[in-house]
Amino acid sequence: MVGKQKGGHQEQEPFTILIHRFPAFNLFFCTSLREHYRLLDPHNSPEESVHSYLSREAQKVRALVCVGHTPLKSDVLGLLPSLELVVGSSAGVEHIDLPECRRRGIAVTNAGTAFSEDVADCAIALLIDVLRRVSSGDRYVRSGLWPKCGHIALGSKLGGKRIGIIGLGNIGSEIAKRLLAFGCSIAYNSRKKKVSVPFPFYANVRDLAANSDVLVLCCSLTNETYHIINTDVMKALGKDGVVINVGRGGLVDEKELVRSLVGGEIGGAGLDVFEDEPDVPKELCELDNVVLSPHASVLTPESFEALHDTVLANLNAFFSNKPLVSPFPNE
Amino acid sequence: MVGKQKGGHQEQEPFTILIHRFPAFNLFFCTSLREHYRLLDPHNSPEESVHSYLSREAQKVRALVCVGHTPLKSDVLGLLPSLELVVGSSAGVEHIDLPECRRRGIAVTNAGTAFSEDVADCAIALLIDVLRRVSSGDRYVRSGLWPKCGHIALGSKLGGKRIGIIGLGNIGSEIAKRLLAFGCSIAYNSRKKKVSVPFPFYANVRDLAANSDVLVLCCSLTNETYHIINTDVMKALGKDGVVINVGRGGLVDEKELVRSLVGGEIGGAGLDVFEDEPDVPKELCELDNVVLSPHASVLTPESFEALHDTVLANLNAFFSNKPLVSPFPNE
Repeated sequence: MVGKQKGGHQEQEPFTILIHRFPAFNLFFCTSLREHYRLLDPHNSPEESVHSYLSREAQKVRALVCVGHTPLKSDVLGLLPSLELVVGSSAGVEHIDLPECRRRGIAVTNAGTAFSEDVADCAIALLIDVLRRVSSGDRYVRSGLWPKCGHIALGSKLGGKRIGIIGLGNIGSEIAKRLLAFGCSIAYNSRKKKVSVPFPFYANVRDLAANSDVLVLCCSLTNETYHIINTDVMKALGKDGVVINVGRGGLVDEKELVRSLVGGEIGGAGLDVFEDEPDVPKELCELDNVVLSPHASVLTPESFEALHDTVLANLNAFFSNKPLVSPFPNE
Repeated sequence: MVGKQKGGHQEQEPFTILIHRFPAFNLFFCTSLREHYRLLDPHNSPEESVHSYLSREAQKVRALVCVGHTPLKSDVLGLLPSLELVVGSSAGVEHIDLPECRRRGIAVTNAGTAFSEDVADCAIALLIDVLRRVSSGDRYVRSGLWPKCGHIALGSKLGGKRIGIIGLGNIGSEIAKRLLAFGCSIAYNSRKKKVSVPFPFYANVRDLAANSDVLVLCCSLTNETYHIINTDVMKALGKDGVVINVGRGGLVDEKELVRSLVGGEIGGAGLDVFEDEPDVPKELCELDNVVLSPHASVLTPESFEALHDTVLANLNAFFSNKPLVSPFPNE
């Protein structure tokens, strides 16, 4: 019943939701959404331009679901005069024109905690992999080198490592929880010191790097965090230091990262995201102290199911005038 | 002063330790041991047979350090009439003739907890890797397929998985501790139910498999555990089930494992050990749902340092008539 306009005892038309997506992106749970809402999707009218479709169909649309990282900028927002809610389907919302949403009072939600555990698992996997050479060992065995060359080089123990987490939100907190079980110590950087958190806070990323063996990136990409990992930070991290990025490619100055890795100025990297995805710098593909993952940190059925629940819960809350379940603090 | 024979105020000769090793194996901390003990090493007299060396030099030897998995059988034990202690340098002691040691009252020690954390980390890394396709994703990126073929297939979330641990000793307990932080549920099989452990105990491995999504092998290899993972157990585990082996290759009927993996009768495997190391069945090297590691679970400087401390502590305890620090229960 939720999501239907009700008048007395008579059910009326369902509310209308605009699906905003790259033509190649499909929202996997449209079928389920359609049980509750009327969906508008410009790409289901391929003979018509998006502009003319929206101008005709979407003047009264109050809520939009933005699929994946499809950019949602002023060109589209300007065609939606009644828009009140943008439901994002990813953890990061850097592809959404947040200042324009703020100006117009349009609420924005993100994936909330739907992906947090899977992304945290991915961060831990990349970290142990870099330290203990798992992918590299797998290549070694598959290439038939083990019988010829014997043991691989020593790795490095995870326990006892000082881990600097950049962005201690849902994902960062899940990462910290896991790392404590491995015997690591945690410190963090984020926009603000968190009162409820027992870990040391560093306001400055360079200082965090200087006091860490590993930096894990899991913050939002914003103007403030763009290239937050630069040459200075990597120098402070040092030649045995490891960078793990499960946030966004733009958090790292990738050219400098490649230079530092090739030059041995840092010890290794585990990367699920890149500045120019799906292109990955060729130099990285030749390094054995790097683990490369094709932006796969949320690619599980469990994450998708949780996302479905979060998107639906946000829409239901909005149309019932209840608090959104995962509002993005667009301050 | 420890490890020296003392008479009144006068220091005497240091105690003698026999180093038992494959010629190719070196005990990396011999230099340190030599500071405390006189070391006998037949392979330092390569012109002479081990038999004649031991017959001449080792008649009074009370303690022996067995390096790695060098077999220590009755042929050697028979040449050491004064032997009272075998200090193993690995977690497993299946290469040592335990019945003969028992018969003669020779104490045996193993690596104790020296390797536990690193082996547990390796098990977790292999498990997340199989479930989340980390090595496979790394191959995908390196081969340049990402821009051409898009996202990789979905993985499977670690959280919520039912993990059956076979062997809940030092290593198994460390594995359980880590998995709890990921939101897994734990059950176990071992020789006996452990009173102090809150997890469900299964006396029968087949029953454990039937109630688990993943089996993690970290028990000793004995007559009882040889091929403990056989066709029946894999059938009970089922087509999405995963086998992780950080114990010994002989715990798994490898031929049947290969057949089950190739036939899709189980879901995947993460293997650090193999039946005929360093040879790995070729079929495994062609599978994408398998992660292969070259018996690398203890290959960190931290593990080696901890082993050094354990070996020395056992020797010091023995020669001081104190309790051994990591006695193997040779019952």
